[in-house]
Amino acid sequence: MDRYTLSVLVENRPGVLSKVVALFSRRGFNIHSLAVGPVQDGSVSCITIVVLGDAATVEQVEKQLNKLVPVIKVRNLGRPGESLSCGLALVRVQCENERLGELMQIAQLVGAEAVDAAPGAVTYRIAGEAEKIDAFLEMLRPYGVREIVRTGQIAMEKARPASSR
Amino acid sequence: MDRYTLSVLVENRPGVLSKVVALFSRRGFNIHSLAVGPVQDGSVSCITIVVLGDAATVEQVEKQLNKLVPVIKVRNLGRPGESLSCGLALVRVQCENERLGELMQIAQLVGAEAVDAAPGAVTYRIAGEAEKIDAFLEMLRPYGVREIVRTGQIAMEKARPASSR
Repeated sequence: MDRYTLSVLVENRPGVLSKVVALFSRRGFNIHSLAVGPVQDGSVSCITIVVLGDAATVEQVEKQLNKLVPVIKVRNLGRPGESLSCGLALVRVQCENERLGELMQIAQLVGAEAVDAAPGAVTYRIAGEAEKIDAFLEMLRPYGVREIVRTGQIAMEKARPASSR
Repeated sequence: MDRYTLSVLVENRPGVLSKVVALFSRRGFNIHSLAVGPVQDGSVSCITIVVLGDAATVEQVEKQLNKLVPVIKVRNLGRPGESLSCGLALVRVQCENERLGELMQIAQLVGAEAVDAAPGAVTYRIAGEAEKIDAFLEMLRPYGVREIVRTGQIAMEKARPASSR
């Protein structure tokens, strides 16, 4: 089973997200991650879903989604690496002052930003591909991770020069 | 009506997200944004929901969520500004080379990162509070925004020194 990313444009009104998510649940498709956010003027939302399955299953999901009324457009962005993809995490890590230097170096290495600090704890924000976020969390583990919150991945087709389309 | 952020820890298995989202839909609560991501070892997911309502309504949603079986913990993180909160967006903007310098200055100003480029188009990734992302998108509008994808907001309580708890 591979991970496929679907980008679904929907009308932004109550109950639409529920319809989309219920379709996956009813068919037993496993949602790995999901992100919803408003697009442009707020009348349209973009739902990005990472789903586990094979190419045939995902094609089926695509067809089913296209049949839902509030769905405007479905795009299959393929497997990881085939699109621009990124997510976001907030992570709070324990740290005594003696080891703060180390921690700051790790954060700098991966481009994480400190967004909050209190005695004995630092909170970092990190944006990037899922693997980069996983690696950062793994590197923080020895210090004592207190809390993690994470978005699902969002994705976009890579830009191509007009001539290659 | 205000925006309230709810952080919901759930067991990570098929159908759980659907249950949570259906609860909002059934009660007519409007989900402004939603983000789901795995936490720690992947057996638990964190769903961050920004909901429109008043304090009493949100308290009701909290109670209902607590009754759902796969829900482990619900936290009300209050209104914007009461918690650490951030989201992520990918935005593709048109740009002729003559105006690239301007565009790069705007991006630098808000801490957006160029993640893709092709003749006539740049794709930026921006992480931060909803207002910051909104402002960036607004600043890009005159150049011609081709595409936007956005996550919902994620949030965490601000860290407090142990003595003030």
